Amino acid sequence: MVKAGIVGGTGYTGVEMLRLLAQHPQVELAAITSRQEAGKAVSALFPNLRGRVPLEFSHPDKAELKKCDVVFFATPNGVAMGEARALIDAGVRVVDLSADFRIKDVAEWERWYKVKHAAPELVAEAVYGLCEVNRDKIRGARLVANPGCYPTAVQLGLLPLMEAGAVDFEHLIADAKSGVSGAGRKLELNLMHAEASDNFAAYGVGGHRHWPEIRQGLAQAAGREVGLVFIPHLTPMIRGIHATLYGRIAKEMDFQELYEKRYAGEPFVDVMPAGSHPDTRSARAANVCRIAVHRPPEQGGNAGRRDTLVVLSVIDNLMKGASGQAVQNMNLMFGMPEAMGLEQVAVVP
Amino acid sequence: MVKAGIVGGTGYTGVEMLRLLAQHPQVELAAITSRQEAGKAVSALFPNLRGRVPLEFSHPDKAELKKCDVVFFATPNGVAMGEARALIDAGVRVVDLSADFRIKDVAEWERWYKVKHAAPELVAEAVYGLCEVNRDKIRGARLVANPGCYPTAVQLGLLPLMEAGAVDFEHLIADAKSGVSGAGRKLELNLMHAEASDNFAAYGVGGHRHWPEIRQGLAQAAGREVGLVFIPHLTPMIRGIHATLYGRIAKEMDFQELYEKRYAGEPFVDVMPAGSHPDTRSARAANVCRIAVHRPPEQGGNAGRRDTLVVLSVIDNLMKGASGQAVQNMNLMFGMPEAMGLEQVAVVP
Amino acid sequence: MVKAGIVGGTGYTGVEMLRLLAQHPQVELAAITSRQEAGKAVSALFPNLRGRVPLEFSHPDKAELKKCDVVFFATPNGVAMGEARALIDAGVRVVDLSADFRIKDVAEWERWYKVKHAAPELVAEAVYGLCEVNRDKIRGARLVANPGCYPTAVQLGLLPLMEAGAVDFEHLIADAKSGVSGAGRKLELNLMHAEASDNFAAYGVGGHRHWPEIRQGLAQAAGREVGLVFIPHLTPMIRGIHATLYGRIAKEMDFQELYEKRYAGEPFVDVMPAGSHPDTRSARAANVCRIAVHRPPEQGGNAGRRDTLVVLSVIDNLMKGASGQAVQNMNLMFGMPEAMGLEQVAVVP
Amino acid sequence: MVKAGIVGGTGYTGVEMLRLLAQHPQVELAAITSRQEAGKAVSALFPNLRGRVPLEFSHPDKAELKKCDVVFFATPNGVAMGEARALIDAGVRVVDLSADFRIKDVAEWERWYKVKHAAPELVAEAVYGLCEVNRDKIRGARLVANPGCYPTAVQLGLLPLMEAGAVDFEHLIADAKSGVSGAGRKLELNLMHAEASDNFAAYGVGGHRHWPEIRQGLAQAAGREVGLVFIPHLTPMIRGIHATLYGRIAKEMDFQELYEKRYAGEPFVDVMPAGSHPDTRSARAANVCRIAVHRPPEQGGNAGRRDTLVVLSVIDNLMKGASGQAVQNMNLMFGMPEAMGLEQVAVVP
Repeated sequence: MVKAGIVGGTGYTGVEMLRLLAQHPQVELAAITSRQEAGKAVSALFPNLRGRVPLEFSHPDKAELKKCDVVFFATPNGVAMGEARALIDAGVRVVDLSADFRIKDVAEWERWYKVKHAAPELVAEAVYGLCEVNRDKIRGARLVANPGCYPTAVQLGLLPLMEAGAVDFEHLIADAKSGVSGAGRKLELNLMHAEASDNFAAYGVGGHRHWPEIRQGLAQAAGREVGLVFIPHLTPMIRGIHATLYGRIAKEMDFQELYEKRYAGEPFVDVMPAGSHPDTRSARAANVCRIAVHRPPEQGGNAGRRDTLVVLSVIDNLMKGASGQAVQNMNLMFGMPEAMGLEQVAVVP
Repeated sequence: MVKAGIVGGTGYTGVEMLRLLAQHPQVELAAITSRQEAGKAVSALFPNLRGRVPLEFSHPDKAELKKCDVVFFATPNGVAMGEARALIDAGVRVVDLSADFRIKDVAEWERWYKVKHAAPELVAEAVYGLCEVNRDKIRGARLVANPGCYPTAVQLGLLPLMEAGAVDFEHLIADAKSGVSGAGRKLELNLMHAEASDNFAAYGVGGHRHWPEIRQGLAQAAGREVGLVFIPHLTPMIRGIHATLYGRIAKEMDFQELYEKRYAGEPFVDVMPAGSHPDTRSARAANVCRIAVHRPPEQGGNAGRRDTLVVLSVIDNLMKGASGQAVQNMNLMFGMPEAMGLEQVAVVP
Repeated sequence: MVKAGIVGGTGYTGVEMLRLLAQHPQVELAAITSRQEAGKAVSALFPNLRGRVPLEFSHPDKAELKKCDVVFFATPNGVAMGEARALIDAGVRVVDLSADFRIKDVAEWERWYKVKHAAPELVAEAVYGLCEVNRDKIRGARLVANPGCYPTAVQLGLLPLMEAGAVDFEHLIADAKSGVSGAGRKLELNLMHAEASDNFAAYGVGGHRHWPEIRQGLAQAAGREVGLVFIPHLTPMIRGIHATLYGRIAKEMDFQELYEKRYAGEPFVDVMPAGSHPDTRSARAANVCRIAVHRPPEQGGNAGRRDTLVVLSVIDNLMKGASGQAVQNMNLMFGMPEAMGLEQVAVVP
Repeated sequence: MVKAGIVGGTGYTGVEMLRLLAQHPQVELAAITSRQEAGKAVSALFPNLRGRVPLEFSHPDKAELKKCDVVFFATPNGVAMGEARALIDAGVRVVDLSADFRIKDVAEWERWYKVKHAAPELVAEAVYGLCEVNRDKIRGARLVANPGCYPTAVQLGLLPLMEAGAVDFEHLIADAKSGVSGAGRKLELNLMHAEASDNFAAYGVGGHRHWPEIRQGLAQAAGREVGLVFIPHLTPMIRGIHATLYGRIAKEMDFQELYEKRYAGEPFVDVMPAGSHPDTRSARAANVCRIAVHRPPEQGGNAGRRDTLVVLSVIDNLMKGASGQAVQNMNLMFGMPEAMGLEQVAVVP
């Protein structure tokens, strides 16, 4: 059994970690911390866990996290960078679900997150936990930077094109739509039901923190810098990201085949048949990214010019976009089967 | 008073016509037809109209539509083209909310709508009812082809760029999101609450009937053919379209100013301040298109290259995207103030 | 023209007051205050009002409210009781949308609202603004206590039975369901879209502030004290209250006729045909209460015993349940037609 | 391994059976039938099952259901009664998720379901599959009538009171609210997203088919006939039932203790702490019924009379209200641990 701890368990990625770890056959949930809720039963805050998670929240200073084999940070940005070092030094392996260790260029990170980074040396060591790219490095990692939700959907959707040099690298477009849980369990007016329900809007068009993270990943796959316009939108649903990705075709090939080959054998990436329109609920509460590749008409009628490739990529932002992927990373790190504890079938309807 | 009739009043554009005409100070609602509901009180089908619309649905064959000054077709595609001629010959002016007269190229229309057109000569005569483009022609028109919902949002969002030659005409992208009422009041599985709610997906990526309509309008504004990728998505909301529009900049200018000048004086197009993110509810149940112009970062960090213009355009698909615009057209046709009966403030929250 | 001011215009009842007053033909919107947003354009906070409300929020201390003919308090409970006196003394008439003046028993009010009442003498003077009960008193009132949302739906649904002594007064049940806007535009976790959407729960079962207000009104109509179990529920919708009301029949009569007679001539109460199931959207954004009366089977099969009367009562909580009713009160107070500015047809779909 | 077949796998209870059985460690999914979709891959209809259910739908006439150990009928009412006999005769055990075998009084059943019953002798044999009542009988049953969704929530909520004679049996009230999936995967206007979303209404107030089923169960527990008003409502959510149950107290006792004792040891009934307000999402996609017992104020202020007991009972209508309970029944019938394959934690948020 792997002893697992969670730091900051009161947010949505935290409760999702609990849902997953409570069902994981090889994990013993040892501790979960919350400064604010210390002493309170986890199931008092999250009644869905009644009878399933007997733990109380413990104060971060008192939780015996160093006795864990793995600790997950489900904290706001800026916490893990201050606390990971001590755990790693104590031999604990760390999966950080926040953004602290995702961007290799520390100056760039500091520009976007507006604070000085507390552990730049750990940034260098951290392995970016996109399993479909870094599987081998993750196995041996002491510190995994779990990817962001948008970055997971967009990177998995574009990676084959990047690696194959199939599209114009200068002008990629990611038009992404997210459910409200992507913003976390926090009090913001635009996330209220009376505001977000029956409504749709873009946000952060001027610049979103996931933009540099996505560009870093795409650039690595392409072997050169890439240009990307990234437009996130808030959608009136709880979970789910739908990324609609646009690239100007630079090299002709069988794109359906390209994707199928790239992701053959991947347990959590599903390349759908040509012509498919994946919906977010087909990934609801499941650790999977479903992808469809299209080449729609552009000019001169249906028989006319088709220069642009359109890739549709959907995930559950709390699963493959956060906690599910974190468990997948843990499975790799501890030599367990990669899919263990992640066999949930998406909940439909 | 203008005597108005509605053909096919049981769909969503029909009930929206009723809501608007019941409140219009210069309109007398004379007849509303429905083959299926003939003899039934309108308010029995739509209790929101109790006490406001005393009419019964009448059978199309018996309705005295020829005594009307104006008749609105709120019918499925393919009906108006068979019935408009007789009304026009009788001196009735017609506003068709369906797609029958929107596309000037009849062969192209027939390819998309899969039937032979019954009145090609009326296609030639029909005025495309986008008031912001054809205001003067509409005033004198006998037959107005009321624009589609997506086409309204996309064209209003892109027109200034087309007219100014500001972007690459070959590769425009319209990533559009619609509420479910855009599909009409019809029984389809994917429109059920249990299917559409808490879910998001693209549809019709291989080709959508609004694509040729949009391209026709953009081409006219540009003075040449244009290339356009148009990707519609179904969003879990009742009303609203949000079009996110992408164009590669071809000519530098002050784009905010371009839009403000183009739409100065337009009663129903609202160019929002730079940096805005219009949400669909700001147009809910109101006859308005709100637009914001952005130029997001693309490469090289926030200070880097910005080649792509992003325009956000929102409407209520049943108002400026259908029935509201139809009333606007009627106002123009009968010399009434353009905004008469269209002063509703968007319903928030 | 009636000069109107609004105190506390940033909540949902405030923005709804603005939507209504902006369209009222006999009202000049003179001032709207907000401590927090002073100096900001109203339309910057509520883009749906762009072009319709040119005001800025003004600081309460600087707003020239005493020059108004009427001032609406759209404030949290506890504000109006401190400020109404000065306005009334200056000859301004006041409609308070909060709960400060609704309950005649000041000690009871203080038990529920947990503060000492600042103006008990005004409580005595205030007229409870349920137009269907106090129409004449409202006309002459200096201070109107606008009813709560639940109290409006429940009282209108039960009044005919109370007045007729038709049911057991000891054991009434009001099972009420409300959309989230009823809780106001405030940051509470359970009102977030990720929490409230696709979810349903009761709340406040142990005691809700609207309980004494409802009992006061029912007791007055009954001429004696009444027993009432009141169970409110939070429903995943923005607007709307559906009250399902249960009373044990004490006196046989034609209940449908009872309701139709009681509300004959009422412009904003709609007694639906027998067998109807009013839905909340039939009142969405409209100032109306729709009611249906049922007598369902209870024992012994469909032909068996039917002892219990079930009344269904729906309103829009922000309209007939708050701001719409406030305008209705203002119309009465200033001798304007009762329905002026309240002709909005409910928005369907 | 238990070989399982499903008849009628294209509805919501069918796809939920598939989700559950695909994850059940002791079940081999052998066949799933659909007249309409025969030959189509299950995962083509339900992409959430891609990679998890390799079956195709087979034609009912060709499916080798007689080789199964258990067959689930997830069919519309009226199918199982015609087909169950042949399977039972072949030694197959049957769990019927439809209503065919739930009501012991065949004449009463026929009144409500409007057809002649095809297998009255099986009605007599069938065991009503409410595990918390009939656990032992279910173990030996050849035919289990799986309870309806409303009946499950209402009976579990009221059973302790019935058995203890704690409330007035003549006048029970069940005010129940259901998500739209309770109506099945069928095309009805009032279930469309544009109709059901952001809306709330009662339905079937004049009489609902679940009413006799509930009364039968309550009467059996009470040992005498009971009177019940049952009012169902349609709620804008996908899954979930919230029953608010009212009973006049007839015998004083510690009601919280009554419930805790009655359900002690029950794996799928959760009596929450006094004062709780269970929400439907705490049961979302999980096989659990959560219950809270209240005794709200009724008259004379908070310290006054409290004659009425209010019980809140929530389930997921597709889980404990249908397919989850069907698996629970199967587990009992085949001597497997009752909770096997039903350990899913409710999905929150």
